Amino acid sequence: MRHKVAHIMTLADLTPAQISQVVTHARFLKQVSLPWLAPSNRIEKKLHMPSQSLFSKSIALLFNKRSTRTRIAAETAATLLGGRALFLGQEDIQLGVNESVRDSARVIGGMCQGIFARVGDHEEIEELAKYSPVPVLNALSSLWHPTQVLADLLTLQEHAHLFDPTHMTQPVPSDAELMQTTKTRKFVPLPQLRPLTIAYVGDSANVLHDMLVTYPRLGHSLRVATPAQEKYRAPTEVWDRVVKLGCDQQIVWVTDPREAVHSADVVVTDTWVSMGQEAEKAERLEAFKGYQVTEKLCEEGGANPDWKFLHCLPRKEHEVDDEVFYGPRSLVFPEADNRKWTIMALFEYV
Amino acid sequence: MRHKVAHIMTLADLTPAQISQVVTHARFLKQVSLPWLAPSNRIEKKLHMPSQSLFSKSIALLFNKRSTRTRIAAETAATLLGGRALFLGQEDIQLGVNESVRDSARVIGGMCQGIFARVGDHEEIEELAKYSPVPVLNALSSLWHPTQVLADLLTLQEHAHLFDPTHMTQPVPSDAELMQTTKTRKFVPLPQLRPLTIAYVGDSANVLHDMLVTYPRLGHSLRVATPAQEKYRAPTEVWDRVVKLGCDQQIVWVTDPREAVHSADVVVTDTWVSMGQEAEKAERLEAFKGYQVTEKLCEEGGANPDWKFLHCLPRKEHEVDDEVFYGPRSLVFPEADNRKWTIMALFEYV
Amino acid sequence: MRHKVAHIMTLADLTPAQISQVVTHARFLKQVSLPWLAPSNRIEKKLHMPSQSLFSKSIALLFNKRSTRTRIAAETAATLLGGRALFLGQEDIQLGVNESVRDSARVIGGMCQGIFARVGDHEEIEELAKYSPVPVLNALSSLWHPTQVLADLLTLQEHAHLFDPTHMTQPVPSDAELMQTTKTRKFVPLPQLRPLTIAYVGDSANVLHDMLVTYPRLGHSLRVATPAQEKYRAPTEVWDRVVKLGCDQQIVWVTDPREAVHSADVVVTDTWVSMGQEAEKAERLEAFKGYQVTEKLCEEGGANPDWKFLHCLPRKEHEVDDEVFYGPRSLVFPEADNRKWTIMALFEYV
Repeated sequence: MRHKVAHIMTLADLTPAQISQVVTHARFLKQVSLPWLAPSNRIEKKLHMPSQSLFSKSIALLFNKRSTRTRIAAETAATLLGGRALFLGQEDIQLGVNESVRDSARVIGGMCQGIFARVGDHEEIEELAKYSPVPVLNALSSLWHPTQVLADLLTLQEHAHLFDPTHMTQPVPSDAELMQTTKTRKFVPLPQLRPLTIAYVGDSANVLHDMLVTYPRLGHSLRVATPAQEKYRAPTEVWDRVVKLGCDQQIVWVTDPREAVHSADVVVTDTWVSMGQEAEKAERLEAFKGYQVTEKLCEEGGANPDWKFLHCLPRKEHEVDDEVFYGPRSLVFPEADNRKWTIMALFEYV
Repeated sequence: MRHKVAHIMTLADLTPAQISQVVTHARFLKQVSLPWLAPSNRIEKKLHMPSQSLFSKSIALLFNKRSTRTRIAAETAATLLGGRALFLGQEDIQLGVNESVRDSARVIGGMCQGIFARVGDHEEIEELAKYSPVPVLNALSSLWHPTQVLADLLTLQEHAHLFDPTHMTQPVPSDAELMQTTKTRKFVPLPQLRPLTIAYVGDSANVLHDMLVTYPRLGHSLRVATPAQEKYRAPTEVWDRVVKLGCDQQIVWVTDPREAVHSADVVVTDTWVSMGQEAEKAERLEAFKGYQVTEKLCEEGGANPDWKFLHCLPRKEHEVDDEVFYGPRSLVFPEADNRKWTIMALFEYV
Repeated sequence: MRHKVAHIMTLADLTPAQISQVVTHARFLKQVSLPWLAPSNRIEKKLHMPSQSLFSKSIALLFNKRSTRTRIAAETAATLLGGRALFLGQEDIQLGVNESVRDSARVIGGMCQGIFARVGDHEEIEELAKYSPVPVLNALSSLWHPTQVLADLLTLQEHAHLFDPTHMTQPVPSDAELMQTTKTRKFVPLPQLRPLTIAYVGDSANVLHDMLVTYPRLGHSLRVATPAQEKYRAPTEVWDRVVKLGCDQQIVWVTDPREAVHSADVVVTDTWVSMGQEAEKAERLEAFKGYQVTEKLCEEGGANPDWKFLHCLPRKEHEVDDEVFYGPRSLVFPEADNRKWTIMALFEYV
């Protein structure tokens, strides 16, 4: 991980210890920051301030795809660290159009202290990283989505008590409790997760790819269902990383979603029709017939009766029905909130 | 006003006491802040700092219509409070397109500490408010424009001496005087306004609607002229609120602009052709023939010879001629400046 | 320069002493700020903080042309000064479309403490400046580009030792050295530049125009090559300023690029096909045949063997080849970085 510049393209770039460290740090930042975000806060002497480690600093957000969650997470995280996230959308800058990616990387990296990039093709962010004098974090590419899986991990660890059959795990303080804190208290460490079975039902896309290189290394097993056609399987580039990290041992890959959710503690899905794939919509809806996450599917498949649900959002109804999405199994909104804290931890990390 | 979350959709949501409190607080913030905005300011120990009550906080600006004034007012106000306004325009987020308004409200509200929304249809902001965990302020909707009328009120109160026939009311310190302040001084309270006659000449749109539910409750009377057709009258939803608050007693509604400006102390107008109504332009210009605010109109109608002029901007020449708009009766630029201070007061209020 | 409001449309508005003062101040800000931008900085008591002279203040960036460098430079500079740059692109505001430039200038100037404008036609920014109550800085117009030439000057002064045949000039501390500073040290003044011969090879556009009114007044001589057609020559408005300032004495204007680079210490070029000129592209590529800056051109022309290269970016390959652009003669990336420090100095200056 100690290159000359510490880019993060995927969680495969981090060791399991580094991943845990980022997740723990995210929880720490959350505990320190939430009291400052309470509606009636006064700047209390008794409270530790968030670290302001980005004081005077700017992080460029290079986004050539629209993004609500990632963008707001990054901008609010930078604000909490005393810095500034500088959003550059497709109207503001077109990488590689008016100027080579190489020149843009050097120029932006000469004025900002980090680059958080959401590009299309993964090669583009690799090119950025190659020439940038400052760390480049992948905010989403065609292949990887590391910040989403960090948020998922934090969410699962914060809900570890829900997965503990012995009921010995203490729930961590809720956001509302943290917000009401009036004086600095000791950091409440995150509980350990027991080894989970995590099912992914849907298209083999960037979120899944980062799951593949991450969960097995942390002791969890993965069960994946994608349609049989080759195009819905992980590309070679991704699978090579999976194998190299020894993660493939812990992955079962099937085509029947019921088989995937068997004994699952967590069920995850993502959109079947990503931005730019609208033309293939009809074909894709056909291919993913039967893949909608519902109570019925999980019962038929034999999931753990206490299974929980994750989704990176935005959500379409065909992937998951309202009963699951808005029901008590769904951790999707805490998961979305956690985008902020894990991105904030990464900003401090690099 | 004490819902679980304190949304503000229209000034009808606030009591007269709350409205006055917001206006007074806006003047207080202006007095405290202006010295810090002087060109040569040094951070002087003798000056109270603006409260920094938004320190570390972010407010989402969800704007699906272009807006110079409201946006700049909100962004500069947040900066003065030590926080960050996060502008999300139509290119950045399309409410209800990629994701339900419900989900967007929850996600954005989970990461920001307030939402300031300029939507099209008023139902959209009601939907946002329904699901948002943090306060939603209406920055403009098809029905209401509360922040504009707050700025108008502050402007009128700051110019109360112009409306006082006894000449006993002291002018408040000017912006230039406030800016030159070098040590904290006592807050100079805003003078009381005598009961005014306020004329509105133009289309029954969001600015007028908030005037209808506000001025009568503060002791002023309203005279409104709109063309005879039903489409230029306040919609039922709005009029129901007017009646419910007992404001209708103090409102005279006519079709002849000369009749409306009779004995008026203040004349107000707004654009006749709002964004999105360009197709109806010719029809509207015809319907509003004779509605242009001019010296002649007000003389013929028998306005108070000292009448003053307000306009929410941007202004087109057909609504008001240059003589009035750039002349000594016009309070439009102080009014525009006051958008900042009243929005700032609302940010602190909610 | 002491108008009621201190606008800067071109460096012709500043005296040579004022120009030097801005460049020196830019270097000072760089020395003070860089330690705070080091990756692992802790807020050290021993270090002077950047002045925070924009604390609570906002500067409007009115950009109706896309711009990576200028925008990022302005936004990061404002952040370092404790203020906020408020970017308003073409989607956000269309000067003169919904509202007169006069009204927009007054409204924006009433809420922001400065305006940094990148317009198309130079008349537009003059109109803005005429009505703005706060300073207007020209970030680029059809005629002038003052902030670019300030960055070029800072870059040349920082590299003065490269131009000193006596080798007596000490190199100034590098960015990396400045960044590692852990306690405040005395300001290392910029060395003097010996009188240079500066060649410009390309289109007579805004960067050149500010060179014409600046370098001769600072003791340097200019050699310019543009194609013979009138359209590639400086317009009358510009040339009148050049003559009025007595700069024309020090300018040699030719059509042969080899003649221009004769004895040149510095060779400068810019794009031949600016934004908006795409239709003329073929014609322009033809007109500028032989104008590409290369080792061969400069050798044939008899440039100083130690010549250095400047370009305001973005760069296209037809203007300058890779050997020069990415080679040791090229100062283009320090030059781009310096946009930030000179803009920051201007923000403090006005």
